[in-house]
Parts: sequence; structure tokens; C-alpha cells
Amino acid sequence: MSLAQTLFAPRAVALVGASGDANKNTARPQRFLARHGFAGRVLPINPTRAEVLGKRAYRSIAEAPQPIDHAFIMIPEVEQALEDCGRCGVPVASIFSDGFADAGEAGAARQARLAARARELGVRLLGPNSMGVIDLPGRLALTVNAVLEMDAPPAGGISMVSQSGTMLGTVLSRGAARGLGFAKLVSVGNEADLGVGELVGLLAEDPATRVILLFLETVRDAARLAEAARRAHAAGKPVVAYKLGRSVLGERLARSHTGALAGSDAAMDAFFRDCGIQRVDLLEALFEIAPLVEGRAPPRLGSAGRAPRVAVVTTTGGGAASVVDRLGLSGIETVAPGRDAPIIDLTMAGTSAQYAATLDSLLVSPDCDAVLAVVGSSAMFHPQHAVEPILHARRAAKPLATFLTPHADASLALLAKGGVAAFRTPEACADAFRAYFSWKEPREVPAGIEFDLPTRETKFNEKSALELFAALGIAVAESQVAHAPAFAHSVSYPVAAKILSADIAHKTEAGGVILDIFDENDFREKTKPLANLGGTILVQRMERGLVEAIAGYRDDPLVGPLVMVGAGGMLAELYRDTVVRLAPVSVAEAEEMVAEVKGLALVRGYRGLPRGDVRALAETVAALSRLALARGRPVAEAEINPVIVKRDGAVAVDGLVVLKG
Amino acid sequence: MSLAQTLFAPRAVALVGASGDANKNTARPQRFLARHGFAGRVLPINPTRAEVLGKRAYRSIAEAPQPIDHAFIMIPEVEQALEDCGRCGVPVASIFSDGFADAGEAGAARQARLAARARELGVRLLGPNSMGVIDLPGRLALTVNAVLEMDAPPAGGISMVSQSGTMLGTVLSRGAARGLGFAKLVSVGNEADLGVGELVGLLAEDPATRVILLFLETVRDAARLAEAARRAHAAGKPVVAYKLGRSVLGERLARSHTGALAGSDAAMDAFFRDCGIQRVDLLEALFEIAPLVEGRAPPRLGSAGRAPRVAVVTTTGGGAASVVDRLGLSGIETVAPGRDAPIIDLTMAGTSAQYAATLDSLLVSPDCDAVLAVVGSSAMFHPQHAVEPILHARRAAKPLATFLTPHADASLALLAKGGVAAFRTPEACADAFRAYFSWKEPREVPAGIEFDLPTRETKFNEKSALELFAALGIAVAESQVAHAPAFAHSVSYPVAAKILSADIAHKTEAGGVILDIFDENDFREKTKPLANLGGTILVQRMERGLVEAIAGYRDDPLVGPLVMVGAGGMLAELYRDTVVRLAPVSVAEAEEMVAEVKGLALVRGYRGLPRGDVRALAETVAALSRLALARGRPVAEAEINPVIVKRDGAVAVDGLVVLKG
Repeated sequence: MSLAQTLFAPRAVALVGASGDANKNTARPQRFLARHGFAGRVLPINPTRAEVLGKRAYRSIAEAPQPIDHAFIMIPEVEQALEDCGRCGVPVASIFSDGFADAGEAGAARQARLAARARELGVRLLGPNSMGVIDLPGRLALTVNAVLEMDAPPAGGISMVSQSGTMLGTVLSRGAARGLGFAKLVSVGNEADLGVGELVGLLAEDPATRVILLFLETVRDAARLAEAARRAHAAGKPVVAYKLGRSVLGERLARSHTGALAGSDAAMDAFFRDCGIQRVDLLEALFEIAPLVEGRAPPRLGSAGRAPRVAVVTTTGGGAASVVDRLGLSGIETVAPGRDAPIIDLTMAGTSAQYAATLDSLLVSPDCDAVLAVVGSSAMFHPQHAVEPILHARRAAKPLATFLTPHADASLALLAKGGVAAFRTPEACADAFRAYFSWKEPREVPAGIEFDLPTRETKFNEKSALELFAALGIAVAESQVAHAPAFAHSVSYPVAAKILSADIAHKTEAGGVILDIFDENDFREKTKPLANLGGTILVQRMERGLVEAIAGYRDDPLVGPLVMVGAGGMLAELYRDTVVRLAPVSVAEAEEMVAEVKGLALVRGYRGLPRGDVRALAETVAALSRLALARGRPVAEAEINPVIVKRDGAVAVDGLVVLKG
Repeated sequence: MSLAQTLFAPRAVALVGASGDANKNTARPQRFLARHGFAGRVLPINPTRAEVLGKRAYRSIAEAPQPIDHAFIMIPEVEQALEDCGRCGVPVASIFSDGFADAGEAGAARQARLAARARELGVRLLGPNSMGVIDLPGRLALTVNAVLEMDAPPAGGISMVSQSGTMLGTVLSRGAARGLGFAKLVSVGNEADLGVGELVGLLAEDPATRVILLFLETVRDAARLAEAARRAHAAGKPVVAYKLGRSVLGERLARSHTGALAGSDAAMDAFFRDCGIQRVDLLEALFEIAPLVEGRAPPRLGSAGRAPRVAVVTTTGGGAASVVDRLGLSGIETVAPGRDAPIIDLTMAGTSAQYAATLDSLLVSPDCDAVLAVVGSSAMFHPQHAVEPILHARRAAKPLATFLTPHADASLALLAKGGVAAFRTPEACADAFRAYFSWKEPREVPAGIEFDLPTRETKFNEKSALELFAALGIAVAESQVAHAPAFAHSVSYPVAAKILSADIAHKTEAGGVILDIFDENDFREKTKPLANLGGTILVQRMERGLVEAIAGYRDDPLVGPLVMVGAGGMLAELYRDTVVRLAPVSVAEAEEMVAEVKGLALVRGYRGLPRGDVRALAETVAALSRLALARGRPVAEAEINPVIVKRDGAVAVDGLVVLKG
């Protein structure tokens, strides 16, 4: 049997620690399996009872009738249960028990031992600290999740992988109340073995799954998730993520130098984008978006930079405006093809046939990219009448969403049943459109061959950092090392002089940087004080340009190599004006990044100012990003600050490189 | 009878145009009045019928039995109906009919005539284009709003004034479904006479009203609304607004020079803030926030700049994190007094008594400013048990909010009934906390006496603008007007020379500005080309400082005089880094504004940089804001760009002044 079969369609499950007290969490899996019609064998394992909730119980896995395809472990003695699984050839164990990576360092060590032993035994693990597995079409409710107390949640094409068991329950309970149908739902817990990535891979191949939702607190297997997301995409299954940590993680990573500009959440955004994963901002948008994107590919807007256009049909001006206002905040235009107004107000017109005809004409119009139908009070009192024309709209060609202004459960359910995306709040509706229009094909990482880092340095100073950048093909400012007391050099004036040290992070503030030295006398005079600060300086040709930029590289512990470009200078630093992508990037991709940096508008023709060589800056960024291809990925962090952008060319003036370890 | 009585508690209402066809909108008021138990007399007015829906009908208001306290006009012949009201002494007419300001210029003129005639007749108008008036405790449903089809919406203390009739229905239907109780709801339509401000004033004095909600598309009577909001505040009734136009209006006003930086939505924010009105960002937060703020005053956090602290108690880590994450984005900290963790997780502990004790101890703790209880799946299946300890918490001392992660209508209703703020989404919950913690006392406009603008100019050039600023007490750069060909002057070097013209907006780009002229020879050489551009230049002492700022004044057509301060330079302009308040402001208030400008961190001690005289900048801003006190408010717009902030002092270098008309 395949992993998917043993996980989602076991012939027999062992419930290790099944309680005879129906009120206990550990009694739930047995109750839920029965309640939701599991057709396989259910084997309660309980050393103290011969019978559990009316079923014959066994003292151990070994004593139960074999074969067992899936064990659900709910006892503290997880290790013992795992040994039993190994001995009996149980291929998968889902572990509800906690006290592992969720419980400090000792717990993490325990988890590592558990995972290692499972590998030896050939047992795949879900969890620990997992709430289990649900397959609604397959009638498997192998879970302690209380949400399964509900009557038959509708089966359908939405599958979900969640790092929070309770939030899996939240999405299922809210979605089911709405009439949305779900397929497979997995609570991954601590991901000691089976992780989000591998599960997304299984769902990509699952015929019942048509959309994959992710509730994430972190990413533990970025490479695997990236690969699985690609496969899901290739299979025509959109992946949508809601991820926590927008504020907390951002703050934590702000300590690192590049991190302060890049921000961890920007790294996550870059990761999702490059994997072709849509990221929603609002919790309910996570499931409300499913019918909007099911069966669709990323939007093609044709000419680059064109704003997406949504045609809005409404029976209430205020209701439409509440969505339109937020679409505008995301740069999405609202259009009314063939009309003067920005929206199509059918308030007074409004026969059902007219409404249907209007919708259908918009759904085939070349003048909009998606259609939004806003329905007012009729959705509350005449659901069938209100949603009828929407249900029959020819929405194959284009995404169609509805927002119902009143409290209108019946209308929401009709729309869900009909496969039409229906949003309860104007904000979730706008968020879903934003996520959809930001959706890209998974990015092809540019071809590049691994190379050896052309240096033997282990600790870089500014000179060796610039040398490394030069070796990557980046134009760097002419520099020479000079020694006290004379600091002899042959760099042509004007020059700058800087204390050379890997240890002084903020040289300028330490008084270790002297700019604008215009001749030899000036040099002699101004470098005198430096002799006291250290014996060695870097003499560098003064570079002038139109604007300063910053470029960075970081091997993120979660998502791997990243490259960043931003506006330079302290003002830009204050505004955190940076753009991040997974590394490496091509020059064309780097040009797109540069185009997104607000402050670099100053060299893109803003107010008639002279244009800078943004192509050269993009080449610098692309070259820096190639650190991701260095054999063994030895570089933890690298930064060029500033890159001076000239009318012709761009030059790296200052930089740092930090190796791992 | 008072206006409030005739509006909300009429002894008799005339329904002008009441239809005998129960399916028509115009039949609704009669049906709704009966359905919801109106105790007064209902008089259908219909020239073609002797009876309407079982009630004796009259051919005109004049023929109906008098006195009539309130007429609801639903016919196109509004003017005729108004005359009838005037003749019969009907003190208030609510007008559902449209075709006025909602219908172009001709309609606007028609509305102006109607309003003028109503004043002559002594009839107060609600509308036109109003859906009417609802008073739930008073059992008045004088409205065409379909939402009243519902069975007895709960009566309570929430009142609402809405510029959108359908969105009034939306809030009532969603709130009522939740179990929230409403008092008075008014759809103001076009506000030809009775506007949002006057209605808020009535609600401020209404004993049944405890919280006032506003759904706004614009502001038509800012001064009156400001005054009414103050009275509501004095009466202990929080006012909460949801306002559209965050993106659209912002774009429109971006055309004006100061507007480009200030943005109209920032003006609205300033207005709401100064009026003591809380502004929510999400639609559902508008009503969900009511129990959170009812009976409360703006928070006092003690030391200025301290982050607000919310203690979070939860039975689900993922659910709490979904709120905490967003609170963090608004700069709100989460705390767990007396514990190591950032939140208080009772998942495993969880007896009801423990939960209650924890809540109560937090509600009296000096270590947090508000409390959030997050409830997981128990809210779905055991509502009574789940919300019991929350309902009995001693929440007088501190705001207490709940977020329920699953679909949990019964729990939401129990909480609403118990007066506990309950949020359906993590985002609305965080939005409400943000609005609450941003809530300020209505601002006392600093005492200031009206003065005459000390100038007779009607069109200002840079010289006369600087003179006006100097007259306001602002330090300006030494300047002299000089004429071709010699451009004789006595300003001490270094100087700048600028073409003097009110017509060249962007002098720098036109080549009309020469900086850094260091002596007389240099001057002669460099000013030669200017002789061709125009005969007159301004010679100005070159001012050097630490940073450039921008200060602006604008008499906003909606909210009146505004003052703005921002970081200067093109980069800051790109980032729209400005802070806006209603003008005038005191120096202390201007200092608060300056402290909020991100880019001015450069002179607040950022990275060890020298500190600038931010007090002097604040004095400049406060002085500029005094334009709001000029008799007749002749100034449309004024801007100082740049103000150069020095270590000691701040000086206005360039500016513009535009008068109205």
C-alpha cells in the first residue's frame, strides 16, 4: 500500500490509548470513526480493558489482529508504541501525544530520537502533537479534533494541511457551516517526519483534491514544500496559504543587518510567490477563496504592469463601494465595460434576466479580468431569487465572486453548493482578489552551475568582501590597502579612507570613514587620526552617482537563499523600502525587483530627474544572488551598501560578507 | 414637540404614496409599522384609493386627520407634498424619493430649491433619497428598508446614522442575527437639511442610545458633526465611524500640491481623531466594537508613547496567534502578567473556575490595558459552558473582548446578550482594539484670536509668501528681490538665486534655481542666464541644516483647515511620510506630530546622528496652522518646502500661498 493509502484509507486502524470514558479526548477517534461511517476495522488498544465503548479492545498492537495500516497513538509512552508498530509492520503512526519539540530542548531531543528510531523501523510518523487525519469522501475521521462532533460535514474538493490542529477545526467548521465541501485535512503537529511539503505532494496526486489550503505558523521543509507546490500547480491544483508571523517574526529577524531591511515576512512572501502559492491575509479568505481559484491558472494580464480590472455588478452602491474601496488599496481597478460609471448599479433596473445577461456579457468581455456580484437585502429574504442568475452565470472564462451585504446564510449556502465563491465580508472578498491577482506561475530558477567560492577567507573585511563581489562579476570601487604611518597608495584622487576591520560594524559612526579627500596633502592631513585607530586602512576612489542603493543576500534558515534590493541611505532604511526574492535571480527578474523599489523612482525618470543605469544595478543584484549557487552554500549573509547607481553603470562601494558557522 | 420626538416618536405618520400592492417598496413602511408594533396613527396618502392594505387612505395630507407629526414621502411630486406639509404644519418630512443631488447638476439645483422652500415653510427634511427612520425600542419602523422584513430585531443601546440605506440594513441584519440590540437607525440620504452632525447631536441626547455608529461615504457638515461628537463624548457615548473613500478619494485629492502628501483619507483620520470619533477599518468591526467601548472613555496609557498591552487568555494557541499577529502590526503588545509566555494558554488546564479566576485577576491587573479571551471548539458544541466564565467576568475596569475560532452562532449570541464584545474574525477583533487604543479625547482647539491676514496680496510669489510666513512668526531665510541686468543685492554670501514668479511651480526643474553661489564673481557669472528667463530674481541666503522638512496648510473642502508636517526631499515625498491634524495646533501638539514623522527620526537621535531643533520645527508648524484663524479664512493652501531643520532653529526657505477663489 502507498503512503497515501495507509494514511488516508487504512484497512485497519489501531487506537493506542483509546479511552472508555466517552467524555475524554482520547475516546474521540473511536466515536468519530463510527459516527462518520469508517468502513475499515477499528482496534482500540488499552492494556486495562477488554472492551472500549462497545468494541473489543486489545492490550497492545501486537495482540491485535493484523495487518494494521495506521496507528493513532494517544499515550505518553510513545516510544513503546512505536516499537510495537515497527515489530508488527504498521507503516504509519499518527501521534497525538505531546511532550516533544513542543516542550523545550529536552523534548526536542526526545523527538529527534523518536524520528531516528522510526526511520530505522520503517515507520512513517505524523506528529507528534498532531490532531490526526480526516478524509471526508473516504469517511475517515481519525482525529481528536472536536470539530468532528458535527454532523456530516459536506465532502468536496478542498483539502488542507495545518500546523495548528484547532485552526484546522476552525476552517472545517466555518467552511462546512457555509456548505463548502472538504476532502482531506491533516494536522501535522511537530512534523518530526511527515511535513507540510510531503503532504502537499500527496494531495497534489490525490484525485479528490482540487484546491489545497495551508495554515502555517512556520515553514520547516521549504525545499520539499516548494517542489510539492510545483507539482500541485502542474496538476492544476491551486495552493493557498495563510501564515502567521507577520509581526512577531519580522521583529525577531530585524536584529540581523540585512534582516532589518528584508524582514522575515517579506522572505515568506518571496517564497510563496516563487512557489506559485497564493497567500491570503485574512483568515476567512483562506477557505472563501477556494471556489474562486479552483481549476484556474495564474492570471495573465498581458502587458506588464497593467492594473487588474474587476467589473462590479451590484444592487447596492454602498455594499459595492465597501469592496471597491479595498480593491483600490491593492491597486485593483474597478471597471464597467461600456458604461460611464465605475460600477454597474442594477438597483433600480433589476430583473433576474437582465442581471444574468449583464453577468454573462462581462464574463466574456475582454475589458475585465474578473467579475464581482454584490447582492443586497434580497440575499437575506429571497435567497433563491437573489442568487439564481449568479449560479447560472457562464463563469468558466473568468473568476466570479459574490459579496452578500446582509446576514444571509441561506444564500451563502446556495452559492457554495453551486461552486460560486461567496464572501461574507468585503475585506475577505478584496483580499481574495488581491491574492488571485498576485498569483504567479512557480518561478523557474535560472539555470546556473554550482561554483566554488573563489576565496579562502573565513572572516571578511571590507576589502576581501569587495574582492569577492568583484569575482562574482560586480563592478566595485577601486581600492587599495594602505598601512600606517604613511598610508602609501596609488588610487587616483578624490579618494575616501576607511579603517579596515571586520569588527567595526558601523564605521561611519565610529569616525573611521573619511570622505572627499581631494589631493595628497589633504590625504596626509586627514588620515593622521586614523593611525591611532588601527594600522591599516582602505583607500578607495570616491564614487559619485545619482542615487545610492543597497543589495543583500541571505541564506534564510527557513526558506533558504534570498536576494534583496532596496533604496539606500538612512531615509530609505527608515522606510524599509526593499524588495526580496528567492535567490538566484536572473537579470530580468532583478530588473523587476528594482522596478518595485519605491525610492529608486528617483532614477527611473521621476520629475524629470536624470535616469540612472537600473540595468547595471539589476546586474549587480543578479550577480550577488549567485552566491546561492556556491558549492556548500557557505555564505550566511552578504550586503553591498551602498551600490552607487550612475547614469552609466553601478558600482559597489562598501560591503560585508559573513560565512556560516 | 421636539425634533427628536417628531422624528422618532411621532403620534401620527402620513405615508405619502403608500402602495396597495404589498410587493412594492412603497408598501413597506405601512407593513413594517404594523409588523413592529407602532402605537401611533398611520395615515396612508394615496389620491387614487380609499383604502390601502386594509387602512383608510386619504387623497392628500390636507385631507387626513391632523395633527400629523411626520410625513414619509415616496412620490415623485416631492415639492407638492412639501407644500402640503407646510400648509398643515407637519414639522418633519422624510423623503425616500430620489432625483435630487443623486441625479446630477439639475437634481442638485432641484434639491437646493426644495431645501430653501422647506426652511421657509418651517418643515425639517430627512433625505431626499433616505430610506427612513427606525426606532426599535420605540417600535417605529418608518422605512422602506427590506431589513425590517425580519422578525423583531433586538432592542438595545446601539444607534446608527448611515449615508447608505442598504448598509444600514447590512449592519442591522448582521448585528441582529448576532443578538446585538439597536435603538435608533437613520438613513440620511442626500442630507438636504438634516445631516449626520445634527442627528448625532440628537442621539447624544437620546436616553436610549449608548453607542453611536456612523457609516459614511463623505462628510457634508464637518463643523456640526465635530460639535455633536463632542456632546456625545461628554454624554459618555462613544462614536464609531466606518468611512469609505480610503483609496478613491485619496487618489482624487492627490492632484493638489499639499494634498499629494497629505491625502484626503489622512484628513479624515485627523478629523475623526480630533473629534474623539473612533474609526474602524473593517465593516463588521463597526458593530462588533460596540460592547467593547460602551460606557468607556478613551484609554489612558500613562507615559506617552507606551505601547498598549492586551492580556490574552486562550484555549487554542493558533487562534490566539491569529489575533496577536495582527495586534502586533498595530503596535499593540500582548502580555501575560506573572507568566513567562506571551499568552496564557489554558488548553490543558481549563476548569471553568480557573478560567474565571484568571480572567478576573487580569481585569484588575495594573499590567495590562485590556483582556482578550480566545475560545476554541468548545464554543461550537458547548456554548453555555464555553462562555460562562467570560459572561461573569468583572469587566467594569477594563475592556474585555472575545474571539471564537469555530463557527459558533450560539456562543456569539450568548456573549452579545451578556454585553460582552464578541468578534467573528481575528482581524475585526484586532481592528477594534486598534481603534480603541487610538481613541483620544476630543481635542480642545488651542485658544487663538482671529486676526486679519497681514497682506493685501491676491497672488503670492515666493517673496510675498515668505513675508506672510514671517508675519506669522516663522523664521524665514534672508531674501531680497533683485532686478536684471545687475541683480544688485546686499544678502551676505553664500546665496541662492531663484526666478521670482508665482507661475512656475517647479522652478528647479525649469532651471530657475541656482544654489551655492559663494561670492560676487560667482554670482555675476551664474545669474547671467536668469536675465533671459525673467527680469526679477530672489536672492536668498543659503541655509544649511541637518535635514529638510515640509510643512503645509490646507482648508479642506470637507473637514476644514488642516496642518501637515512631513519629511522633506523627494525620497520622503515618494514615501508620503506626512502627519496631518486639524488646524490650528498648539506647539505641543505640533511636537507630537513631528514625533510621528518617520523620516524626521534622522534628527531625533537616530544612529547617533546630531539632534535637530524639532521644537523649532514644531513652532513653525504651529505658526503656519494659525492661518486657520485668519478672518474669513482666505487661504486655500500654503506650503513651506523646505523648512530646514538645524541644530538650533528651523528656517523656511521656500514656500507658496494660494488664496481661495
